Amino acid sequence: MKLQPIGDRILLKVEAAETKTAGGLIIPDTAQEKTQTGKVVAVGDDKDAIKVKKGDRVMYDKYAGTSVKIDGDDHLVVKMQDIIAIVE
Amino acid sequence: MKLQPIGDRILLKVEAAETKTAGGLIIPDTAQEKTQTGKVVAVGDDKDAIKVKKGDRVMYDKYAGTSVKIDGDDHLVVKMQDIIAIVE
Amino acid sequence: MKLQPIGDRILLKVEAAETKTAGGLIIPDTAQEKTQTGKVVAVGDDKDAIKVKKGDRVMYDKYAGTSVKIDGDDHLVVKMQDIIAIVE
Amino acid sequence: MKLQPIGDRILLKVEAAETKTAGGLIIPDTAQEKTQTGKVVAVGDDKDAIKVKKGDRVMYDKYAGTSVKIDGDDHLVVKMQDIIAIVE
Amino acid sequence: MKLQPIGDRILLKVEAAETKTAGGLIIPDTAQEKTQTGKVVAVGDDKDAIKVKKGDRVMYDKYAGTSVKIDGDDHLVVKMQDIIAIVE
Amino acid sequence: MKLQPIGDRILLKVEAAETKTAGGLIIPDTAQEKTQTGKVVAVGDDKDAIKVKKGDRVMYDKYAGTSVKIDGDDHLVVKMQDIIAIVE
Amino acid sequence: MKLQPIGDRILLKVEAAETKTAGGLIIPDTAQEKTQTGKVVAVGDDKDAIKVKKGDRVMYDKYAGTSVKIDGDDHLVVKMQDIIAIVE
Repeated sequence: MKLQPIGDRILLKVEAAETKTAGGLIIPDTAQEKTQTGKVVAVGDDKDAIKVKKGDRVMYDKYAGTSVKIDGDDHLVVKMQDIIAIVE
Repeated sequence: MKLQPIGDRILLKVEAAETKTAGGLIIPDTAQEKTQTGKVVAVGDDKDAIKVKKGDRVMYDKYAGTSVKIDGDDHLVVKMQDIIAIVE
Repeated sequence: MKLQPIGDRILLKVEAAETKTAGGLIIPDTAQEKTQTGKVVAVGDDKDAIKVKKGDRVMYDKYAGTSVKIDGDDHLVVKMQDIIAIVE
Repeated sequence: MKLQPIGDRILLKVEAAETKTAGGLIIPDTAQEKTQTGKVVAVGDDKDAIKVKKGDRVMYDKYAGTSVKIDGDDHLVVKMQDIIAIVE
Repeated sequence: MKLQPIGDRILLKVEAAETKTAGGLIIPDTAQEKTQTGKVVAVGDDKDAIKVKKGDRVMYDKYAGTSVKIDGDDHLVVKMQDIIAIVE
Repeated sequence: MKLQPIGDRILLKVEAAETKTAGGLIIPDTAQEKTQTGKVVAVGDDKDAIKVKKGDRVMYDKYAGTSVKIDGDDHLVVKMQDIIAIVE
Repeated sequence: MKLQPIGDRILLKVEAAETKTAGGLIIPDTAQEKTQTGKVVAVGDDKDAIKVKKGDRVMYDKYAGTSVKIDGDDHLVVKMQDIIAIVE
């Protein structure tokens, strides 16, 4: 399945969150607050509004958007206003 | 019965959701979260706002729109803003 | 009594809903969800906004508008934005 | 006391509701849903917005406006948007 | 203390409400619904919005504005949109 | 600490409220409704919106703004729309 | 990790709050209301809206923005409208 977002919407692949504790232990994300970063997979057709591009890693508002599974991976369709920052 | 949506509204035929589990078993959609895809049956007269066309398969916001049965099939009249993405 | 709707309002005569069950039995509408169709009786003076005409059969948003009895029949004054589709 | 409504406001004299039952019996309005008609007594100074004139009998939104007694009679100051239709 | 309202605000001196019953008895206003009239004491500097002048007796929306005591008298600072009518 | 308000915001020094009763007794303000006056200490850079100047004594909406202590004194940063009147 | 805020958003490094009591005792901020100041680390690309610059120390609305840890330090991405004042 391939999704083409409409207008100022953006399709993100949600990133699996892994975190090292101070002792170096890796905790899977169910044990902590979910991170809010994703990779841009596709962008809508509203070129004036869209300020990210395919491949950008972005931070987004918690609870924003609509969840969708694509080929078993968690994705999210969010609006441009839900994108907070580009993670560099 | 034939419905002609008004303005930026779109008439969708809701898709029956079937899902294969990892083991290949098919679960009818009452046992899972309803998918949110439909096929565009008719579009309103607001040509500037409407960005999908008859035959497109689209994803829409959960709870959006007004349900209506046409010839026994579930349909939905949604506004353009409720269409999230085109499914290709 | 005759009502002349104002602005983008539309006066509808609500249709009595009758439904045949699979077995052909007719159920009066108190026993089921009320249908939301009506016939346009009069339209307001905002010609730019109004996109239906006298005699059209239309579908409207549940709970929209103001109920009024005219000569014993259920009518509804709704705004144009509450009209979802023309039923053909 | 004389009231001069401001802007797009309209002063209505609320009509006492009397209803004949099928058998011709008159029920005072406390026993039924209050009708929502009134006669236009004065209109505000916003001539572009005001689409009714002194003497018109109009239907208005339930709960709209501010009640005021003038010479013992129930009046209502409503905004133009609360006027639904002219009763002819 | 003297108050100069800002923008489209208006300073009113609230009128003490006295009412004669049918028998001529005067009831102090705690025993009835408070009237909503006041006298305009000062107006703001937004001359386009302000449509009342010092000395006008006006009716205003219940619960509108901010109460303030000036020299022991109840005053109210309201916005122009809270003024319903001029009482003549 | 010195605060420079941004946009249409205004920094006020909240006035301690003292009130003489009829008998001349002074009641500290915890025993009465808090007055809502303050002195303008600094104004934002939105010169078109700002209609008060440093030194003005103003009345403001109850609960408006953000409290901040500066050198032990209660201050408040409010928006211009929260300023009701200039106290003269 | 480096964050580049989008539009009128601003990345702040939240300041740890230390307060001297009258007796000179330092109280860690869990024991008092959290201060709301931070240092601007990066600003978005909406140059017209952004009125602070990297290095400014600013006060912001309580509860505004999205928290994020960068290299172990508390940061906050806020919108320009959440910035109340520049602390000088």
